[in-house]
Amino acid sequence: MFDAEIKLLRENPPLVHCITNPVTINDCANLLLSCGASPIMADDPMETAEVVSSASALVLNLGMPNPRKLEGMLTAGKEANRRKIPVVLDPVGVGVSRFRIESVQRLLKEIEFSVIRGNISEIHALCGIASSSRGVDALADMTQEQIHDAVHHLANATGAVVAVSAATDVVTDGLRRIHIHGGTPLMSRISGTGCMLTALIGMFCGVLPQDPLKAATIACALMKRFGEHAALMMECRNTGFSSMRRYLIDTASRLDFLALQGGFHIEDW
Amino acid sequence: MFDAEIKLLRENPPLVHCITNPVTINDCANLLLSCGASPIMADDPMETAEVVSSASALVLNLGMPNPRKLEGMLTAGKEANRRKIPVVLDPVGVGVSRFRIESVQRLLKEIEFSVIRGNISEIHALCGIASSSRGVDALADMTQEQIHDAVHHLANATGAVVAVSAATDVVTDGLRRIHIHGGTPLMSRISGTGCMLTALIGMFCGVLPQDPLKAATIACALMKRFGEHAALMMECRNTGFSSMRRYLIDTASRLDFLALQGGFHIEDW
Amino acid sequence: MFDAEIKLLRENPPLVHCITNPVTINDCANLLLSCGASPIMADDPMETAEVVSSASALVLNLGMPNPRKLEGMLTAGKEANRRKIPVVLDPVGVGVSRFRIESVQRLLKEIEFSVIRGNISEIHALCGIASSSRGVDALADMTQEQIHDAVHHLANATGAVVAVSAATDVVTDGLRRIHIHGGTPLMSRISGTGCMLTALIGMFCGVLPQDPLKAATIACALMKRFGEHAALMMECRNTGFSSMRRYLIDTASRLDFLALQGGFHIEDW
Repeated sequence: MFDAEIKLLRENPPLVHCITNPVTINDCANLLLSCGASPIMADDPMETAEVVSSASALVLNLGMPNPRKLEGMLTAGKEANRRKIPVVLDPVGVGVSRFRIESVQRLLKEIEFSVIRGNISEIHALCGIASSSRGVDALADMTQEQIHDAVHHLANATGAVVAVSAATDVVTDGLRRIHIHGGTPLMSRISGTGCMLTALIGMFCGVLPQDPLKAATIACALMKRFGEHAALMMECRNTGFSSMRRYLIDTASRLDFLALQGGFHIEDW
Repeated sequence: MFDAEIKLLRENPPLVHCITNPVTINDCANLLLSCGASPIMADDPMETAEVVSSASALVLNLGMPNPRKLEGMLTAGKEANRRKIPVVLDPVGVGVSRFRIESVQRLLKEIEFSVIRGNISEIHALCGIASSSRGVDALADMTQEQIHDAVHHLANATGAVVAVSAATDVVTDGLRRIHIHGGTPLMSRISGTGCMLTALIGMFCGVLPQDPLKAATIACALMKRFGEHAALMMECRNTGFSSMRRYLIDTASRLDFLALQGGFHIEDW
Repeated sequence: MFDAEIKLLRENPPLVHCITNPVTINDCANLLLSCGASPIMADDPMETAEVVSSASALVLNLGMPNPRKLEGMLTAGKEANRRKIPVVLDPVGVGVSRFRIESVQRLLKEIEFSVIRGNISEIHALCGIASSSRGVDALADMTQEQIHDAVHHLANATGAVVAVSAATDVVTDGLRRIHIHGGTPLMSRISGTGCMLTALIGMFCGVLPQDPLKAATIACALMKRFGEHAALMMECRNTGFSSMRRYLIDTASRLDFLALQGGFHIEDW
C-alpha cells in the first residue's frame, strides 16, 4: 500500500522545516531522518522566512511557545504560503493558556494551513477558537455528533484538512471523513508521539503538496503501525517505555517494508 | 514498600509542570510518563502562571538559565504558592556563575519551596547563598559535620526539605535526617540523572503534597534502585552508557513492581 | 593507538563548555559523558564568559541560532581567547540564511578558533565568507583541487585547523593535509553525528590544547570508528536508526578499548 507515495518519497526526499517543541525536537528530527527525509530546525524570525524558502513543507508546533518563536512561525508561515509550500499546524496544549489560544488565533488568521493535527481536546479547543461566537469551554457539553460537526466546521472555516488523533483517528477535509483504526493506547506513555505524527504529516505533505487529505491519512496510518510494532517489541523483549520509543523510530526505518506489508485499517478512504 | 503512595499515584496521576533544562527536558518528560504521571513543559512568563494553576506540582530546574525563563519561574512559583501547589527546586550548577547565584537568591526570596534537591557542591553553594553572612566559597573549608549543620540550617532557613544526592543521599526537613543508601557511581556517566530525580520528587510531591519529606525520600530511594537496575543491565548485556540511560527510564515503567519488591536501604526513616 | 592522548584524557578529564544546538544538545552531553569528559551547557550572555573560564574547551555550534545566543557565543569566545582556552566552531547550515552567514562573519572576526569543523557544503560556504572578494555561491563552480586550495586558504586566513567531514575526512592546518578514511554513509541517517564529532574535537582540544591538528584528527578517526561499530550492530541486530544512535554513544563508552584495538585509516599523519 502507498506504493506510489513511497516511491515519490524515495525519488525526492523532502526537506521538512520544523518550528517545534524543544521537548521532542530530537525525536522529530530522528523520525524524519529514519524515514529518509531531511529535517531542518530553525525558529528565530531572523532566519525562518529564508529557511522555509528552500523547504518542501513547514511544521508549526505550539509546544513551549514564546513570543519570539511565534514571530518566527508567522514569518515562516506567510513566506511558505507565498511559495505554495504546505504548512502543518500542531496546536499542542492549546487549551492550557490564554497565550496559546491567542497564538493560534494569530496563526489561523495570518497563515493558510494544509493540515491541522491534534488530539481531541486540542481540536475541541481549536473549534471554539475558530468559531468566534463560542468560547473554548463551550465544547465540553457537546455530543459526539456535535463534535464531528465542529471538526467539519473547523475544516471548512480554515480550509485545512483536520486530523484528530484518538483510538480511531479521524481525518477530514470538510467533505470526506476518513477513519483510521489501530495503534495502541501505550503510545500515550511516551513523549512526542503526537509531535512525531505531525512531522510525518509534514513529510507527506512535502511529497504530496496537492493532496493534504491523502498525506495526513497515510501519516496517521503509518504512525499507528509504528506504535503497534513498538508496543509488540516492548512486550516481547520485556523492556519499557524508553525502549518502546526507540522501537518506534527504528520501525520508521522500515517504512517501505511496512507499507508493502499493508494491512492498514482505513475506512471511507 | 510505598504501597499507599503508589496507590495514590495510580488513582490520581499528577500533572507535573516543569520549567527545566533543555539538555534533559526529554528525559524528564519520558521518566514522568514512564511512571504514569503527566509532564507539562512551559517556560515563558506569558503562560507559566496559568499552566501551573492546573498542575499538581511545579519543578524549577536552574540548568541553562536566562532572564526570561527566570521570570517564567518566578511567575509560576508565586502562583503555585498562592494555590498551595508544591514547588521543587534543582539549583543545577549554581556555583558556576554570578547569574545563577542571583537567580537562586531571587527564587529563594520570592518562592516557598517544598523540596530543594542538588548534589553536594550545589547544596554547599546554596547554603552559602541562603546565609547572608558567608560567601559561597566559605564552605570549602568545612568539615562533614559542619556541612550537615549547614544543610539543616538551609532546611530551617528556607522551610524546605533539603535532599542531597551522593553515594548516600541525605534528606532532611531540619528536624529529621534520613539516609538513603544504594545507587551506583555510574549514574554520573549519563546526563539527566539529577534532573530526573528532581522531576520524580516533583511527582511524589504531587501525590503527597502534605509530606515533602516522604515524597523526597521515596523518590531518592526509587531513583537509586532505577540506577542499580540500569547498571546491572548494562553490565549483563555488555552495552554502554546510552543504553544504561534507556534501561533507567525503562525501569521506571515498572515502578509498582520495584516498590513491591522492596529492599530499599533507608536509614532513620 | 592514541595511547598518550587517552592517558591524558583519563588523568585530567576535560570540562567542555558547549553553546550548542537544542536538537542534539542531549546527544552531545551524553557522548562527552560516555567518553569520560564533563559537559557544561550554558548559552546566555549573562553567564557564558564566567562559565567558560573554568572550562578546558569551548564548542560553538551554529544550529538554531538567535541573536541572544550569538551574544553568548561572542562573550564566551572572547573570554576563552583571553584565557588561551581552545575554541571550536561548527558552522551548522551556514548557507541556509543571511543571519547564519553574518553570525559566522562576526564569530570569525572577533574570535580565534583552534578548529573549525563542518561538512563539505558548510566549509564551502565558509570559504566564501572568509574571503571577502567572493560570495558564498561562487564556490559552486570550483573543482576538487580548487576546493582543497580554498580549505587551505580558510585555514591560513583564520589560523584554525579546518576539518571537513565526508566519506574521507580532511583535516588541515594550512600546511599539512591529513585524510581519515572509514565511517559509513548511514551516519547521515541519524541526527547529531556532526554535532557530536565537533563536541569530541572540543574534548580532545581540552586534552591537547597545543595541538589542535592532532586533536581534530583523533576525534575524526574515533567518530568514524564509532559509526562503523554502530552500523554493524544495527545490521547484526536487525534494528533501525534510533538504535544505531544508541550504539554509537554506547561505543564511545569503550573509547580506550577501541583506541587500543587500532586499525584506523589515517593518511599523511
